[in-house]
Amino acid sequence: MRAGVDLGGTKIQVVVTAKGARVVGQARRNTPLRGGPEVIVRDVVSTVREAAAAAGVDVGELQSVGVGAPGSIDTTTGTVIQVANVAGLDEPFPLGPAVAAELGVPVALGNDVSVAVEAERRYGAGRGYRSFLGVFWGTGVGGGLVVDGRLLLGRGSAGEIGHVCAKPGGRRCNCGLRGCVEAYAGRGALEARARREARKRKTVLFDLMRKRGRDQLTSGVWLRALDAGDLVARDLLREAVGALGVGIGSAVTLLDVEAVIVGGGLGERLGPTWLSRIEQAAREHTFFRETPVFKLAELGDMGGAIGASMLGSGPRSDHKVQTYADGPSARMR
Amino acid sequence: MRAGVDLGGTKIQVVVTAKGARVVGQARRNTPLRGGPEVIVRDVVSTVREAAAAAGVDVGELQSVGVGAPGSIDTTTGTVIQVANVAGLDEPFPLGPAVAAELGVPVALGNDVSVAVEAERRYGAGRGYRSFLGVFWGTGVGGGLVVDGRLLLGRGSAGEIGHVCAKPGGRRCNCGLRGCVEAYAGRGALEARARREARKRKTVLFDLMRKRGRDQLTSGVWLRALDAGDLVARDLLREAVGALGVGIGSAVTLLDVEAVIVGGGLGERLGPTWLSRIEQAAREHTFFRETPVFKLAELGDMGGAIGASMLGSGPRSDHKVQTYADGPSARMR
Repeated sequence: MRAGVDLGGTKIQVVVTAKGARVVGQARRNTPLRGGPEVIVRDVVSTVREAAAAAGVDVGELQSVGVGAPGSIDTTTGTVIQVANVAGLDEPFPLGPAVAAELGVPVALGNDVSVAVEAERRYGAGRGYRSFLGVFWGTGVGGGLVVDGRLLLGRGSAGEIGHVCAKPGGRRCNCGLRGCVEAYAGRGALEARARREARKRKTVLFDLMRKRGRDQLTSGVWLRALDAGDLVARDLLREAVGALGVGIGSAVTLLDVEAVIVGGGLGERLGPTWLSRIEQAAREHTFFRETPVFKLAELGDMGGAIGASMLGSGPRSDHKVQTYADGPSARMR
Repeated sequence: MRAGVDLGGTKIQVVVTAKGARVVGQARRNTPLRGGPEVIVRDVVSTVREAAAAAGVDVGELQSVGVGAPGSIDTTTGTVIQVANVAGLDEPFPLGPAVAAELGVPVALGNDVSVAVEAERRYGAGRGYRSFLGVFWGTGVGGGLVVDGRLLLGRGSAGEIGHVCAKPGGRRCNCGLRGCVEAYAGRGALEARARREARKRKTVLFDLMRKRGRDQLTSGVWLRALDAGDLVARDLLREAVGALGVGIGSAVTLLDVEAVIVGGGLGERLGPTWLSRIEQAAREHTFFRETPVFKLAELGDMGGAIGASMLGSGPRSDHKVQTYADGPSARMR
């Protein structure tokens, strides 16, 4: 059995999987918003222990722990290089070795979205496609590319559809660029925008948030606001879809993929109706007559953690992964 | 020896190459602007004969003739599917079989930009890179991608950087979409814009064109106008560079390539100064701290024809090419 950790801007999701990516235990908690990388390591470690307990195994019996972390990863040193959405990981940090040292189990590190795309490719909506673009529409907008049946990594970080330009000179993104897809479509950016709009226009978004005991506009809150006919929610999501359409259309024009697979919290919650809106928006920016198939991701919010659990399992020439043992042969401590 | 044909919006360039892509003969003429596909076939055929004569060989002695044609190609049937820049090829046309029937030599068809990128990869500026983006800045803006050391074709037409969105809702492109890179940066679009500007502002562009006996604003005319301090030329080319920057930056953000190689008539003529402007513009839209190397293409305006001559040479698992013989076993006539 292997554990997989999906370390996101909002939550830490851990699964323990048996053969064939079958989930036999899981645990989750909110990502700590302060305390720096040490607190993130502590919470990752305790969530792994909890998931192992749920699966009825000792942590020491796990073959490996894979961690999918957001942003650029140096898989050779196990370092998270550049991350925008997790407080405390805004500087390079050797997350792989740190977690391995605490757990006493080999740890492999990968980009959170790459592992989720790899999971969809092997066990989800990507089965049967030689090429597809995965778009994870959540707190940020992540992406991954499968080309000729393999994850495309470039120099290590390919697929950043959230930072494709949707509007030159447009809104400032967390990453520092202007006009990125994520600056219009990421849930973080949407919430910031909604707070400003709420001063000028009536919206039920924040009432719904409080009523449901949340301190953020979750995907579920956005869906409920839409269902209630909230115009601020509708307008902001339409703008988000427009930006996603530019990014996806440009990516398809460049890569001529067979399919586009949309996941992430917002993708899942908003479902088929909004998927077809994204498809229409992308069509306006797609050069080819034959547009790709648009599908929702199938592995749900566990997809990232399932994909992370596949890290370091067997030889993976298509995905450079370094495993960190905590024994005397450990490369880094 | 093999012949290669670069069929562009402006010219038909043919080379005859010996081993190692050494050019031993060449010929060129302007692409016919009227008369439909039959006239294009006739002119391609006569230019091949002329190049063969220059190389001192009979056409019948050529091992193959490769044709790089613009737009989407169906390599299985040898059909040009979708082309924007060549008058007479706006409907699907079986160019490969038609040329093979006239010449009596096996003909292979490929996308003009893909073959030029492949030539740069093997013999030009792309040597030594595992991944790069090739941008051909000429009448249109073509592109090709090398990933993991191989040309990326997608479903057959990947790399269309000229039709990545540079400005949502922006200027109408020849392809029918709005705001494409090519609608701002292609020489065709630049000329149309310059004609409109000339009604409002002083410009030497058209005087230079006439003085040099041209009926189009060639890359050389643009360069001379810049040297003469022409403000219309400067403003339009700056806008072109801005659009190229959005497209290239978005492509790099998606693909994380090692290098960007810029060729085409305008790329070559405008040279290193404008290359570094393109690099700066792309940097504004590139997510990664470590941006790729920017280089000029090395094979010049023969690159496309040299690449075309490589079509059908040996087994090419990375580039699906169908060869059309004119003998009894021909698949199509």
